[in-house]
Amino acid sequence: MPRNPEALQSLIDALSSLPGIGAKTAERLAYHLLESPRAEAERLAGSVAALHNSIHHCVRCHNYAQGDLCEICKDPRRDGSLVCVVERPQDVASFERASGYAGVYHVLLGAISPIDGINPDDIEVGSLIGRVEQGGVAEVILATDADSAGETTALYIADQLKGAGVRLSRLACGVPMGSSLEYVDEATLSRALSGRTEVA
Amino acid sequence: MPRNPEALQSLIDALSSLPGIGAKTAERLAYHLLESPRAEAERLAGSVAALHNSIHHCVRCHNYAQGDLCEICKDPRRDGSLVCVVERPQDVASFERASGYAGVYHVLLGAISPIDGINPDDIEVGSLIGRVEQGGVAEVILATDADSAGETTALYIADQLKGAGVRLSRLACGVPMGSSLEYVDEATLSRALSGRTEVA
Repeated sequence: MPRNPEALQSLIDALSSLPGIGAKTAERLAYHLLESPRAEAERLAGSVAALHNSIHHCVRCHNYAQGDLCEICKDPRRDGSLVCVVERPQDVASFERASGYAGVYHVLLGAISPIDGINPDDIEVGSLIGRVEQGGVAEVILATDADSAGETTALYIADQLKGAGVRLSRLACGVPMGSSLEYVDEATLSRALSGRTEVA
Repeated sequence: MPRNPEALQSLIDALSSLPGIGAKTAERLAYHLLESPRAEAERLAGSVAALHNSIHHCVRCHNYAQGDLCEICKDPRRDGSLVCVVERPQDVASFERASGYAGVYHVLLGAISPIDGINPDDIEVGSLIGRVEQGGVAEVILATDADSAGETTALYIADQLKGAGVRLSRLACGVPMGSSLEYVDEATLSRALSGRTEVA
């Protein structure tokens, strides 16, 4: 039986339902919010409450957006002829952090996985093909995950876009930066070997 | 420059100001809230918003409480003659989890630390002495931290309550359960030695 007052316990319960937040961390966070100024808690409450009302999917690329278009689609400096296809909005954030990429994105909001009942119609493949057919796209980079669903999706899209007159590319697969070969799995090593690049 | 929509970024900022939540975790939590049903986000927002309005300090022991008295002070099965003095409401939660304790608490809301400008008047020492003077208290357990502020506080309270006709005790100090002696610091080991108990 929890000895915490109800309002505190219900916050602890709400927090511990978040991924990676256990009961102990949830309690620590709740106590922190209780001890910090009221304004800080109100800021957090407001942000969480506003989230679902403010954020939608970008009408063009399906990334998260506050208006019709996301920050990237709105940016005139981005190269709209280069489209990087990813599974999730989080992947866009990862690429943006890595930086160096000046093109735009297309977020599929999933990956094809017949075992899980996810077919091409369930994800944003159709809208990608529509974008390419509208013209102005020179290259589509298939940046879906390197797992079976991601590979299936990349193959499916490549097949659909064959003959559409765009260059198709796939993210390089190989040994992660900074890792020791001792800890790299065989499939990755085999891909790294077959995709080896020439040293100038 | 963050590429996230403003409402998402402001939630990420609010989350990453919490202790132990870095930028990466904050982002993961924000995405989770965005992907989960609206009701889950609303439950969390409501709990955080209600917190400061619902939770106050218990008028008797200064633990967190939703009404005037906390859950423990309200409980008629708790032994009011046994008062465990702790620094923080979190410590009450720790003792309750350990269980086996049937008495009540007194939360000081701090510890005496002249270096930090915290004097006996800044914490709830006066109200503790008042509780003892009102009578009905047989034993006061000094369960402040085993650091210098906690020890100072325990000594100060012991001094103030001398002659008040109550038994004063301090938490046992020694080797933590399950730990190897190899990793126990010398101060703890020395206290464990001087406080050794006879094996029947």
